[in-house]
Amino acid sequence: MIDKEHMRLALQMARQTKGQTSPNPVVGAVVVKNGRVCGFGAHLRAGEEHAEVHALNMAGDEADGATIYVTLEPCSHYGKTPPCADLIIEKNIKRAVIATEDPNPEVAGTGIQKLKDAGIEVSVGIEREAANWLNRYFFHYIRTNIPYVTLKTAASLDGKTATKTGESKWITGEQARDDGHILRHEHDAILVGVNTVLEDDPSLTARAYNGGIHPVRIILDHHLKTPVHANMLRDKKAPVWIICSPEAESSRRKQLEQAGAKLFPVSAAIDIHEVLQLLGSLKIQSLYVEGGASVHGSFLEAGAFQEVVSYLAPKLIGGHSAPSVIAGNGIRAMSDVSELEIVTLEQLGSDIKIVAVPKK
Amino acid sequence: MIDKEHMRLALQMARQTKGQTSPNPVVGAVVVKNGRVCGFGAHLRAGEEHAEVHALNMAGDEADGATIYVTLEPCSHYGKTPPCADLIIEKNIKRAVIATEDPNPEVAGTGIQKLKDAGIEVSVGIEREAANWLNRYFFHYIRTNIPYVTLKTAASLDGKTATKTGESKWITGEQARDDGHILRHEHDAILVGVNTVLEDDPSLTARAYNGGIHPVRIILDHHLKTPVHANMLRDKKAPVWIICSPEAESSRRKQLEQAGAKLFPVSAAIDIHEVLQLLGSLKIQSLYVEGGASVHGSFLEAGAFQEVVSYLAPKLIGGHSAPSVIAGNGIRAMSDVSELEIVTLEQLGSDIKIVAVPKK
Repeated sequence: MIDKEHMRLALQMARQTKGQTSPNPVVGAVVVKNGRVCGFGAHLRAGEEHAEVHALNMAGDEADGATIYVTLEPCSHYGKTPPCADLIIEKNIKRAVIATEDPNPEVAGTGIQKLKDAGIEVSVGIEREAANWLNRYFFHYIRTNIPYVTLKTAASLDGKTATKTGESKWITGEQARDDGHILRHEHDAILVGVNTVLEDDPSLTARAYNGGIHPVRIILDHHLKTPVHANMLRDKKAPVWIICSPEAESSRRKQLEQAGAKLFPVSAAIDIHEVLQLLGSLKIQSLYVEGGASVHGSFLEAGAFQEVVSYLAPKLIGGHSAPSVIAGNGIRAMSDVSELEIVTLEQLGSDIKIVAVPKK
Repeated sequence: MIDKEHMRLALQMARQTKGQTSPNPVVGAVVVKNGRVCGFGAHLRAGEEHAEVHALNMAGDEADGATIYVTLEPCSHYGKTPPCADLIIEKNIKRAVIATEDPNPEVAGTGIQKLKDAGIEVSVGIEREAANWLNRYFFHYIRTNIPYVTLKTAASLDGKTATKTGESKWITGEQARDDGHILRHEHDAILVGVNTVLEDDPSLTARAYNGGIHPVRIILDHHLKTPVHANMLRDKKAPVWIICSPEAESSRRKQLEQAGAKLFPVSAAIDIHEVLQLLGSLKIQSLYVEGGASVHGSFLEAGAFQEVVSYLAPKLIGGHSAPSVIAGNGIRAMSDVSELEIVTLEQLGSDIKIVAVPKK
């Protein structure tokens, strides 16, 4: 029981740093000796100290003979910092409690083995599910080289994103919108279709309660209709990447490049899987897809998503011509409709937030 | 605290009888003496004993000096049974705890007054909100003479009721569908548009876990397109009422009447408020609107509903041509979209059930 309590605290620390450690996973650590907590730590930024280093530093001499709780297997290799497994051994830790293994092929069990070889008592699997969920973006990417895709939808209870006249401000309330900003902060990149740019001219930055880290802003734009004076290109707050057809006009390309965009011509049809492979090669680990409806439709039809976050406002808009939250061609047969599993269901202010993943 | 416990039990008993007491409200009663429960009762069927009678009968001599908990103000008038207030006085009850007043103009405080006049200590308002919610159909009708309208929707997370090919079986899972049958049982009448009859030929009976009471089945059918061999007309399980235009062909009318339907010509446009007034005059206290999308649209545009029950299946269907759960003309401006307040939010098997009411 007490193991769980300490691990949950380590997980909570890690959770608070979500979005700020990419391309590294989030990690929290707690050092406990004789029932007294003597060290806390979390990895705060790629290239800087790992969670274990902070926690062991805080513990100082008390680390000798103590137990360390870590949400992820300690690293065993020289990266930007020396291996944490070595430090744990050096500090004479007696027991290491680890939530889950690091799927990174450079670690993948070797950290645990190293600790065991040094005579440290190692327990693996405490709160494993929560730890895996916490680093789901990183784990997915490290295994597939493809970004983890979160489809975000916001609609009325009857699935509409605007009235028939196109009025859409606001469907959801402030709390749901703030929550969406946190998700922008937590993902490496955000993606929208060019129609969203033309209609709303959004900035797509992360403006949560206390600021946030802006994701790379990606526009699917076959024919380079993105205006050179788009807010995104003018604010310079984060990179703007435009994915286009190879046939897009070269003069137009130059204009957008001069305005600060980076252009990525892919094949003419802009196949979603091809786009994801491209983004994976560009080290994007997590992608937040905000829409609009056709873009969502493309990801849905390609089966290219790992998570759905739906904000539902308790309103009914109705109207056969009012826009639905997911358009595109749509799924044909009920047997082809992929079932989701609800991970969390909560009220967020006056709205509802549903997080779901494809059923295994 | 103990008052609340007893009242909650009385409410639970009343809740179990929902659907079986119309046109009467549901009522539960508990009799307690010296900390011992000595009587339970609920009203089971219109025309039969009220809850207090059952509970006081069970209590027998122990009622003398006891406390009675009743979810609704005891009646003070001679209806099909003698007044419960008189019985409570006669049995020498010492204290009466009442959740809420009966808005029925034949009662409306006179039951409480009668008890007080007889020297009984009366406490009103324990669990009032739950008691009012429980009898919301009855209370609405007794105040307005218009049925309480529940709009029921069942859709995918993106608001679709079928794929683009029209395939709709099944969107929601078994538990959600069973729950829908319970709601049919609890309402006096169910209403659909003629397109639903033509497409699905439904029976609209209440087939919950252990049977149920079938609602009156109402079809909105301007031009009398309902087939004379429709399942509903053949099964004779509950009345079939067809609301039509006064211009509907008289030979067709006769055919449907011969098949067992009761016809109600209203004005040509079939205005929803007019329909509700008609149903109110026919003693329908509660109306369960199952759709389809155009019928839902009509009720939405008329602002003619007191409750929305949405079943959402965690699936994404997509497709700009896949049917949405609410069609019709739709609301024009966001400022005209009526906001709802969520009453309950729960998972029902793999699906989500949302109960919401218009925000006050």
